[in-house]
Amino acid sequence: MEFIKGVREKETIGIAKGLVGENVGKTIRMEGSVHTIRDMGDVAFVILRKSEGLVQCVFEEGKTAFDLALLKEESAIRVTGVVSEEGRAPHGFELRLREIEVLSQPAEVLPIAISKWKLNTSLETKLSLRPITLRNPMERAKFRIQEGIVRGFRDFLHLKEFTEIRTPKLVARGAEGGSNVFKLDYFNKKAELAQSPQFYKQTMVGVYDRVFEVAPVFRAEKHNTTRHLNEYTSMDFEMGYIDGFEEIMEMETGFLQYTFDLLKKEYAQELKMLKIDLPDVSNIPTVRFSEAKELVSEKYDRKIKNPYDLEPEEEVLIGRYFKEECGSDFVFVTHYPSKKRPFYAMDDPTDDRYTLSFDLLFRGLEITTGGQRIHDYQTILKKMEDRGMNPEDISSYLMIFQYGMPPHGGLGIGLERLTMRLLDEANVRETTLFPRDVTRLEP
Amino acid sequence: MEFIKGVREKETIGIAKGLVGENVGKTIRMEGSVHTIRDMGDVAFVILRKSEGLVQCVFEEGKTAFDLALLKEESAIRVTGVVSEEGRAPHGFELRLREIEVLSQPAEVLPIAISKWKLNTSLETKLSLRPITLRNPMERAKFRIQEGIVRGFRDFLHLKEFTEIRTPKLVARGAEGGSNVFKLDYFNKKAELAQSPQFYKQTMVGVYDRVFEVAPVFRAEKHNTTRHLNEYTSMDFEMGYIDGFEEIMEMETGFLQYTFDLLKKEYAQELKMLKIDLPDVSNIPTVRFSEAKELVSEKYDRKIKNPYDLEPEEEVLIGRYFKEECGSDFVFVTHYPSKKRPFYAMDDPTDDRYTLSFDLLFRGLEITTGGQRIHDYQTILKKMEDRGMNPEDISSYLMIFQYGMPPHGGLGIGLERLTMRLLDEANVRETTLFPRDVTRLEP
Repeated sequence: MEFIKGVREKETIGIAKGLVGENVGKTIRMEGSVHTIRDMGDVAFVILRKSEGLVQCVFEEGKTAFDLALLKEESAIRVTGVVSEEGRAPHGFELRLREIEVLSQPAEVLPIAISKWKLNTSLETKLSLRPITLRNPMERAKFRIQEGIVRGFRDFLHLKEFTEIRTPKLVARGAEGGSNVFKLDYFNKKAELAQSPQFYKQTMVGVYDRVFEVAPVFRAEKHNTTRHLNEYTSMDFEMGYIDGFEEIMEMETGFLQYTFDLLKKEYAQELKMLKIDLPDVSNIPTVRFSEAKELVSEKYDRKIKNPYDLEPEEEVLIGRYFKEECGSDFVFVTHYPSKKRPFYAMDDPTDDRYTLSFDLLFRGLEITTGGQRIHDYQTILKKMEDRGMNPEDISSYLMIFQYGMPPHGGLGIGLERLTMRLLDEANVRETTLFPRDVTRLEP
Repeated sequence: MEFIKGVREKETIGIAKGLVGENVGKTIRMEGSVHTIRDMGDVAFVILRKSEGLVQCVFEEGKTAFDLALLKEESAIRVTGVVSEEGRAPHGFELRLREIEVLSQPAEVLPIAISKWKLNTSLETKLSLRPITLRNPMERAKFRIQEGIVRGFRDFLHLKEFTEIRTPKLVARGAEGGSNVFKLDYFNKKAELAQSPQFYKQTMVGVYDRVFEVAPVFRAEKHNTTRHLNEYTSMDFEMGYIDGFEEIMEMETGFLQYTFDLLKKEYAQELKMLKIDLPDVSNIPTVRFSEAKELVSEKYDRKIKNPYDLEPEEEVLIGRYFKEECGSDFVFVTHYPSKKRPFYAMDDPTDDRYTLSFDLLFRGLEITTGGQRIHDYQTILKKMEDRGMNPEDISSYLMIFQYGMPPHGGLGIGLERLTMRLLDEANVRETTLFPRDVTRLEP
């Protein structure tokens, strides 16, 4: 009988262990894709693309047992070579090739030069060829940063004793209501795709006190803007036993501090490639919604059209104001008008036209919506009645208030938007692996 | 201007820091839900439910400044009390109450006694009252174990240099085809819900060599069995530069070894509550599909009806066989028939009726399907042609082979099934927070 015993050491080696001083003069084996070939006559530079970075390999006529003419870009190969110091090569070393083994060959030549440092092409082309263009080192570095943000979110909340949950995306009724919901037939019943895990994460506060989830959410928005997606990743948390909604903003600030530290430590190579300076998040200013409107109206000589809503242009100006006035890329805008927030938002007891809620703006773009929620059964019933909602429609959600819920609140962070602002991209599609918008369902 | 500076220390305390020897005689503050009240006359035991466990609080007439008659089960409270040693209390300490502050009150009395050690009720009732029944300590312990499994998967793969990805769930065409796909209207185009991240994770092997994703997948299965869900969590990984599909099984074995160690270290309390002995995964036997059929046919005197398929009963017997013959709860069944595997599966070069693929059975239940994939463009075109498939339907997937892919393979693990088997539950719904089946779309 044969047994599997776990992961065995491979005889090929990665960059971190292979391209080091102590290996100079030694022969190592490496695998990777042929990123590009620069033939200089007697020698040729074969750049190997590996997950961790690029490796300069030197093909020497007569010394490398292979016919260079047979080597194609985007072939997967295994090479044997001697490590040699070379200041101009990535990581400070190059590999003098002895043998090349081709593991797999492409059928066709690439339709676009992905080995260029920065892809010089339209967003449209980039997205249509996404399976290939993501192989470009700059492109893939963006999504390593995105991975780091999600790791930071989870690791930080785990330290703060949050429990990770997984809630259904097929639901009887979306939590936010409205028209931007995808509907489908579910065994002859009407179903919707979850617009947010709101009801479920609140439910789970009754179970674990503090919970979080990182998962897709779906919005049937017809807007085709630079900041909307029809499917995006929402990083949600919800916490019980809060004394005020400030605690939620503090937790988010803590997440940003932790995550930027993690990026500095573990994603330094990607930050350098993308030329990203991480913003200072030691202090994030807060401003009330109505005050923010007045401040920018005054400073930038802009008339307030609607006192109950923030237009995207106003968000941009609020971002600019706090950058100019206190050097911050972030600002918490608090106390949004009650009529602009969902029924489950807790009204400010001192003025019920406003709620104990906030948005976090990052360089003028909303990346988070959060706040304290109603926890009292009669209060939520009253609010639903005022809005003409039928409690029977969401009875399994209301159950949690009926049988007791602690004071609580939470937030949802748009992962792609946060990444977009951090990387100074102009379109949220740039920081989405395979974006979904009104016209795009493939690749 | 006001600023948020990050997370501040709270003046309330958790179990790990509060209920310790050095606090005996000291007054601490704690928050939690009133899990149950046992009134003994002069004293009463108020059991506080916190995320980390239960706390025995002692209400003493005349010493506790509160009217016990006003305290309700499932109220959220903040208490002040003196820590006192008590061997019979959970964690070895109790809290002698001085003050009780009610933070929120339930509107009604619970319809079911969730404070019982084990909920004695039907699965149907448990699920209908899920938002409340999850507050039962045994119920919630299951999903802490589930959290641990996901953490183990991610942390292990991160150590093995996999990159985490997030792929779309709204797709033009499901990767597995067939009839079990949910369809919906996407801005007047036909869309489907992803049955698996298959195409996308393969695509991302071309970018990062090794990738993983933990995310929901959707199957419109009409079967209402104890092991099917219509939405479940798939833990997927895909790895490039493999020398054979054994490497995938080795990686999965490594994941199980790592994760069971993590559970032992960080989820010991939950394992103890649920009386779980973790199975040995130091050696997992492998057996070829056709050999497995013969072995159980012989040993259990069972006729082979269909040589190309495994019936659920046969899976159970294969599980039993390897438990009896070599004491293993797990067994890899390899070399599934080609006609039973998707078009992208790589055929065995020595016998193309079979594939370089496997399932992992855990106590007779399939919890994983994996294998090596075709990486050559002409080979995959040929296989599609043989099956009457149209390459144009999935051209953006085929693009990756056209322009070069390394040899690769991977797997998908059903999280809820793995949890179900680990916890010895009879129904996969027991280990799904809010299960979706043919009749259930709520809560």
